[in-house]
Amino acid sequence: MTKDVEVAERGSFSSKDYHDPPPAPLIDSVELTKWSFYRALIAEFVATLLFLYITVLTVIGYKSQTDPALNADGCGGVGILGIAWAFGGMIFILVYCTAGISGGHINPAVTFGLFLARKVSLVRAVLYMVAQCLGAIAGVGLVKAFQKSFYTKYGGGANELADGYSTGVGLAAEIIGTFVLVYTVFSATDPKRSARDSHVPVLAPLPIGFAVFMVHLATIPITGTGINPARSLGAAVIYDKKKAWDDQWIFWVGPFIGAAIAAFYHQFILRAGAAKALGSFRSNPHN
Amino acid sequence: MTKDVEVAERGSFSSKDYHDPPPAPLIDSVELTKWSFYRALIAEFVATLLFLYITVLTVIGYKSQTDPALNADGCGGVGILGIAWAFGGMIFILVYCTAGISGGHINPAVTFGLFLARKVSLVRAVLYMVAQCLGAIAGVGLVKAFQKSFYTKYGGGANELADGYSTGVGLAAEIIGTFVLVYTVFSATDPKRSARDSHVPVLAPLPIGFAVFMVHLATIPITGTGINPARSLGAAVIYDKKKAWDDQWIFWVGPFIGAAIAAFYHQFILRAGAAKALGSFRSNPHN
Amino acid sequence: MTKDVEVAERGSFSSKDYHDPPPAPLIDSVELTKWSFYRALIAEFVATLLFLYITVLTVIGYKSQTDPALNADGCGGVGILGIAWAFGGMIFILVYCTAGISGGHINPAVTFGLFLARKVSLVRAVLYMVAQCLGAIAGVGLVKAFQKSFYTKYGGGANELADGYSTGVGLAAEIIGTFVLVYTVFSATDPKRSARDSHVPVLAPLPIGFAVFMVHLATIPITGTGINPARSLGAAVIYDKKKAWDDQWIFWVGPFIGAAIAAFYHQFILRAGAAKALGSFRSNPHN
Amino acid sequence: MTKDVEVAERGSFSSKDYHDPPPAPLIDSVELTKWSFYRALIAEFVATLLFLYITVLTVIGYKSQTDPALNADGCGGVGILGIAWAFGGMIFILVYCTAGISGGHINPAVTFGLFLARKVSLVRAVLYMVAQCLGAIAGVGLVKAFQKSFYTKYGGGANELADGYSTGVGLAAEIIGTFVLVYTVFSATDPKRSARDSHVPVLAPLPIGFAVFMVHLATIPITGTGINPARSLGAAVIYDKKKAWDDQWIFWVGPFIGAAIAAFYHQFILRAGAAKALGSFRSNPHN
Repeated sequence: MTKDVEVAERGSFSSKDYHDPPPAPLIDSVELTKWSFYRALIAEFVATLLFLYITVLTVIGYKSQTDPALNADGCGGVGILGIAWAFGGMIFILVYCTAGISGGHINPAVTFGLFLARKVSLVRAVLYMVAQCLGAIAGVGLVKAFQKSFYTKYGGGANELADGYSTGVGLAAEIIGTFVLVYTVFSATDPKRSARDSHVPVLAPLPIGFAVFMVHLATIPITGTGINPARSLGAAVIYDKKKAWDDQWIFWVGPFIGAAIAAFYHQFILRAGAAKALGSFRSNPHN
Repeated sequence: MTKDVEVAERGSFSSKDYHDPPPAPLIDSVELTKWSFYRALIAEFVATLLFLYITVLTVIGYKSQTDPALNADGCGGVGILGIAWAFGGMIFILVYCTAGISGGHINPAVTFGLFLARKVSLVRAVLYMVAQCLGAIAGVGLVKAFQKSFYTKYGGGANELADGYSTGVGLAAEIIGTFVLVYTVFSATDPKRSARDSHVPVLAPLPIGFAVFMVHLATIPITGTGINPARSLGAAVIYDKKKAWDDQWIFWVGPFIGAAIAAFYHQFILRAGAAKALGSFRSNPHN
Repeated sequence: MTKDVEVAERGSFSSKDYHDPPPAPLIDSVELTKWSFYRALIAEFVATLLFLYITVLTVIGYKSQTDPALNADGCGGVGILGIAWAFGGMIFILVYCTAGISGGHINPAVTFGLFLARKVSLVRAVLYMVAQCLGAIAGVGLVKAFQKSFYTKYGGGANELADGYSTGVGLAAEIIGTFVLVYTVFSATDPKRSARDSHVPVLAPLPIGFAVFMVHLATIPITGTGINPARSLGAAVIYDKKKAWDDQWIFWVGPFIGAAIAAFYHQFILRAGAAKALGSFRSNPHN
Repeated sequence: MTKDVEVAERGSFSSKDYHDPPPAPLIDSVELTKWSFYRALIAEFVATLLFLYITVLTVIGYKSQTDPALNADGCGGVGILGIAWAFGGMIFILVYCTAGISGGHINPAVTFGLFLARKVSLVRAVLYMVAQCLGAIAGVGLVKAFQKSFYTKYGGGANELADGYSTGVGLAAEIIGTFVLVYTVFSATDPKRSARDSHVPVLAPLPIGFAVFMVHLATIPITGTGINPARSLGAAVIYDKKKAWDDQWIFWVGPFIGAAIAAFYHQFILRAGAAKALGSFRSNPHN
């Protein structure tokens, strides 16, 4: 391995103990001819539909169960902790289920970050985002179809800036929250990992789900937590109130900036010569 | 691998990098002669018994602890979040414990889905369902034997449609919830996974348990969450009230439809040429 | 593999694809001469000390935070769900940490079950139980030393039968709860697993911790949940009230019966010819 | 393997089935010339920043949501259980993300323990601690910048000794809590594990995160739980109240003592001849 390290020292980022794929082309005309490409779009659509269906249903159910007008038990319902679990847990299982079919994005910000890192083609990125947004709209639509009066009364699961927080704070919360998510996605799916860190098994979906869970714990009081433009758009389209539309730009600009910073951080800071950084937990921290 | 992909392109679903088993026969007379078959029935019976025992005991205990007549502390008890954990966590450990003995179904809807996909014989499917239903009845019976007055007073853990939701909504909630579960089961146990996705370790029981947890977070306010006909039947038999029996059909028709859709989705949409879909997280998303 | 299966068919329990160890002797004089044996005793002592320290501190802290006399916010504290997590989570990390040193029992009922299955010698089993009980007493003693008035006021973390439940119910709850735990321990540590179930990775500590978590969710309202005689003894010794001592026998007899049933179930029902039971999730459910 | 055991019997700690690295030098002039070293410092800074940002935002958000003056619903917010999840979950994902870059310390007490065990050089240890403290200050600063009035009103996430507990108890709570964490870190990253315990997969970040979660459940009522001097310093610097500064020494002395005891326990008690301790769960507990 000494020789590889030597090479890396000289500024080459290639190392022989793992396979670094070439950047994806912007337009890959071959992938458009394959069934696997369209199946991936279906999988993204279905996964985002299920994601919004379960999570928004949890939000509405929680609020109806703790409504003092309906229920004397103010502590009923799954709590905000349960809502955070719903978002994080669904991402865990859906990434697990779709990783082998579509890559398991389920989030335009993740797709954008992976496009910036040239992991997916431009055409794939755009069509994934369309499929995700349509799936999100359909998922929230199902929740509204279930119980229209509860849906509207309890806020429709829409992302809105809470009172007491400025627009800049909401934007910052979305940027940093999405950074946490996309940074975890890059760390979990780095092709260098299996070669480099045998003590950190690449259990990608679990930490990705936990990242979503954590960000919800922290930022539900500020923005309701977007960090997923499809989720915010789907709720806004079905809820369709002025406040949700006025704040909608925050939930696109913030996540895209956060994803871009995460892509930059991973590709230019962490990956530069990463083969040399074996960390102090490894047997030999000095090479 | 190029050659395998070529073959797959031509519509053949077989690929050489994994072993796709032949469909199970409807009646497999050989399996009936083996101890391992009867042991699998015992394991399904015991697992479903433990599943209902722990979960219904959690439901009853929660309701007794938050009863204002008994307890001034309205926030005592494990909460609805704790109930959802009980269901999801038990499925995690029971699938983990029985996977090598019986396949770890513990749910007639899962057995039905795997039968439709021809993973189990008809005889095995029917006898598994019988064992599961008997186990569920025994498990709920234990809870009633422990504290009969609490059991009856707090609803017996029975699945019933909540006020404010129509029958159609309850049925839809059961269909989609079971789809989430059975889709996760198919994704987790796909024999293609270990060959295809080395970055998504096949930790089957954990995501399956989380799928159950998620669906409970979302649909406890609507139906109490069935997605498992044995669970619903066991509670109805022991609780034995008119409302639980009137709604019982929802908790059989819904889960079976949901499982059938999941089997169709996995076998005809996702598995068709699955070897080609390596996803954008993989090194090379274009083959 | 066909040949092995043939052998198994004829009633032999040995199969060549895994190594089934010989039964442990009752008295193994060689192990008494080794440092590794005494180190294992130290590890069991320390682990049980930490287990009781963290869990009883969580119980006392929860009760002090929700005491209406001290705190207007009746919903403060980690909740009973948090208490259940404390017990389950500590078992997860302590089994993880000590598995390679002592086998990670941390519970006389687990040691008893493994002794019945002849996995440990009689001498090892007895000395483990002594180390566990001393560790538990020391751990609860630390909590009392921290805040004596809170400790006594909030029940000392002692296991007692709740009002409204008969002795028989308490005993049954302990038997079944310990069965769930010890059954999971046997399933997770079966040497046949790695050979047989490549799709169920042997992540032993996580399902074992979850089993403890689940049982606490269900039986805290009945007995406070023992399923670990060292835990119950340690709390009784330090709390030292009549009721805790009167009920103490339940928390020894129950867990030992539950562990014995689990050992019997695993060794005589599930292990008999287990090599043949490949389950319907496997590629080929018919051999 | 018999021969290795023989060697171990004679008091040598080296065994041939794993690679035990040489102790790190105090000053390693070569590492200072590498980009990978500076990148590790950046990764520790960013990870500690994200850790404090998410966790303190969760604390402040919880307190604002349960403030009776702002919100009639006293049960809103994620609860103390949610706060404990925020701390434990962030450590899980951040150790997962940075393990391959910096070793994933994110805590001066962990760095100190690994330095004592000679896993990292003195220079690396000191610069890691500086990066962690700066990151923590920046992370808490972000939370204050988001909502200054909430931040100050709700205690700034600072660690302080609670009423009713003596200084000695606070110090003891920090010592034992940090012992639990650093003991788990040593157990999870022991190079002997992969060779020795194939049934305990080395999923290091998950048990480490759970250790942090558990300690928070137990000691939030006593000290708010430090067990991480960078976390305590960051909150004290930004909050800047007398009480937080007066108690600050507890959150440095306690964690450093706890880490030292854990390093001693692991290196001198558990590692001494560890190759011989195969544990009773293993196939052969007697060698």
